[in-house]
Amino acid sequence: MKTIEQLQVLIDDEIHAQYRILEPRELYEPMWYTLSNGGKRLRPVFVLMGCQLFCDDVRKAALPALGIEMFHNFTLLHDDIMDKAFMRRNLPTVHIKWDVNRAILSGDALAIQSNIFIASCDKDILPDVLSVFNTTALQVCEGQQYDLNFERIAEVSVAEYLNMIRLKTAVLIAGSLQIGALIGGADSAWAAKVYEMGDMIGMAFQLQDDFLDTFGNPVTFGKNIGGDILANKKTFLLIKAREMANDEQRAILDHYYASEDFNADVKIGSVKKVFHDLDIDKITIDKVHFYSQKALEILEEIPVEKDRKVELEKFTRNLMDRIR
Amino acid sequence: MKTIEQLQVLIDDEIHAQYRILEPRELYEPMWYTLSNGGKRLRPVFVLMGCQLFCDDVRKAALPALGIEMFHNFTLLHDDIMDKAFMRRNLPTVHIKWDVNRAILSGDALAIQSNIFIASCDKDILPDVLSVFNTTALQVCEGQQYDLNFERIAEVSVAEYLNMIRLKTAVLIAGSLQIGALIGGADSAWAAKVYEMGDMIGMAFQLQDDFLDTFGNPVTFGKNIGGDILANKKTFLLIKAREMANDEQRAILDHYYASEDFNADVKIGSVKKVFHDLDIDKITIDKVHFYSQKALEILEEIPVEKDRKVELEKFTRNLMDRIR
Repeated sequence: MKTIEQLQVLIDDEIHAQYRILEPRELYEPMWYTLSNGGKRLRPVFVLMGCQLFCDDVRKAALPALGIEMFHNFTLLHDDIMDKAFMRRNLPTVHIKWDVNRAILSGDALAIQSNIFIASCDKDILPDVLSVFNTTALQVCEGQQYDLNFERIAEVSVAEYLNMIRLKTAVLIAGSLQIGALIGGADSAWAAKVYEMGDMIGMAFQLQDDFLDTFGNPVTFGKNIGGDILANKKTFLLIKAREMANDEQRAILDHYYASEDFNADVKIGSVKKVFHDLDIDKITIDKVHFYSQKALEILEEIPVEKDRKVELEKFTRNLMDRIR
Repeated sequence: MKTIEQLQVLIDDEIHAQYRILEPRELYEPMWYTLSNGGKRLRPVFVLMGCQLFCDDVRKAALPALGIEMFHNFTLLHDDIMDKAFMRRNLPTVHIKWDVNRAILSGDALAIQSNIFIASCDKDILPDVLSVFNTTALQVCEGQQYDLNFERIAEVSVAEYLNMIRLKTAVLIAGSLQIGALIGGADSAWAAKVYEMGDMIGMAFQLQDDFLDTFGNPVTFGKNIGGDILANKKTFLLIKAREMANDEQRAILDHYYASEDFNADVKIGSVKKVFHDLDIDKITIDKVHFYSQKALEILEEIPVEKDRKVELEKFTRNLMDRIR
């Protein structure tokens, strides 16, 4: 069995093996710029971990896994245009480094490349793999649209938020695991169970991310703490806090979330105090635990040897451990 | 055998049968707005004509044909952003009616929908169909990139131009026919021949379009004559003319193509005179005849009953007849 770190290396090696800038360079350059700019390769690793649950030869999932990574990078490329993001992983985004047209078109080409790699899997399972992949891909677009909608509407409910992150983040993790399981030889019922587990892991993962952005350790988190607060992002923390706040607390939140023109430390400190007073940190930790625990229960059910599950279990437990 | 007109009706009926605006509406509305806004349904009709060459039941190609139409509309949607086009088929383009973000994201979703419909074909031929479709899709992006590049470079050769229109227009017509042939039961060698024929039809089609935009009959063409000249578009006519022009003629062309600030009639008249003096109209007609003739020769070779070929022959001859 391969560890997550070994699977990450496998993916990075595969990306370098496939790397080629074709003509016209203007199209292919931004694709590889995006794809080769690191990242944790989380989604393709999930494809490989899904495969590893049922089969020893993870290499046969390598190209479809790469397809998933390409799809994910395509969504980042287009999302960065929509979100007017300037930087991504310490490099200028494609629409900033080149221009919006290049970002639209090379994103489109990356999406098509992802289809090519996904379609490289075995003929017998291709219809099932495509059905998972295409459904998931469409849901990711739906999630992004809801996320864009949320910027313009004042009141977002917790249920609406959870539905959005499920579509935008969790389903791709779930779909990655399911595709890996199908390639590994799982029957469709167990592959569907693996999807369910991935859905739970994805929810825990996104809520953990929301938590760490505000309450994380600045040394280990890797990004500046409080970024979501400064950008007035409607995260689980804010939505839950506004739901539970008394009039005074809601007034403080609405005051600080009405503009980006505040002293950063004052704004982060004031918002975090309201969150703390309302136990939002504890509530979020509980939510992450809830989803992680669900995922572990499903993992337990899957009828394969224990050592096949080790890495998935480690990943899921780590989601909880990092926010303890 | 069904006529082109009957096949167009079949496609329009299928679009209406599939029409449903899901949630979030912000995502699905622009997709159907684009898709239901008429057009000649040329590419899906080619899928059906490719199928009809080898099989009586064209209905089994209906959903993949719709997938091709969706893919084509996705490219229009994104191209309209890149080209800053305000109108498409007498309606405001998506990025004008809504905004650029909606146009990017609903275009992405339309591309994914197209994959879903393409993947609905028979399991046995799915790998071959996807291989044609994905390769073609990537080439269409390459063609669009070359087209964008051409706006920024002074000298484009005839060979470069022909390569661009092959990628941007011809391969999708060719791929549509090949996918239809595969669904109709053609073996891979004949399906590849059908692709070759489609490539020739596509080249003739685009060159005819270039011709009609400048030399067409304003009553039957449907668009204003001279639009390409007014927009300083590098068409076959201009590129060939600049290649053949003497210094004086080239100076006239370069003068008028340097800006959009000219009296329309004066500009169109002056450019057309240079084209006429250089026999560009005749040269373009010859090119259309060349490609159409090649297509008809390949059609002749295909070993199926004559009546299966009638509509394709009619379409191809019509390309020549309209510019005689």
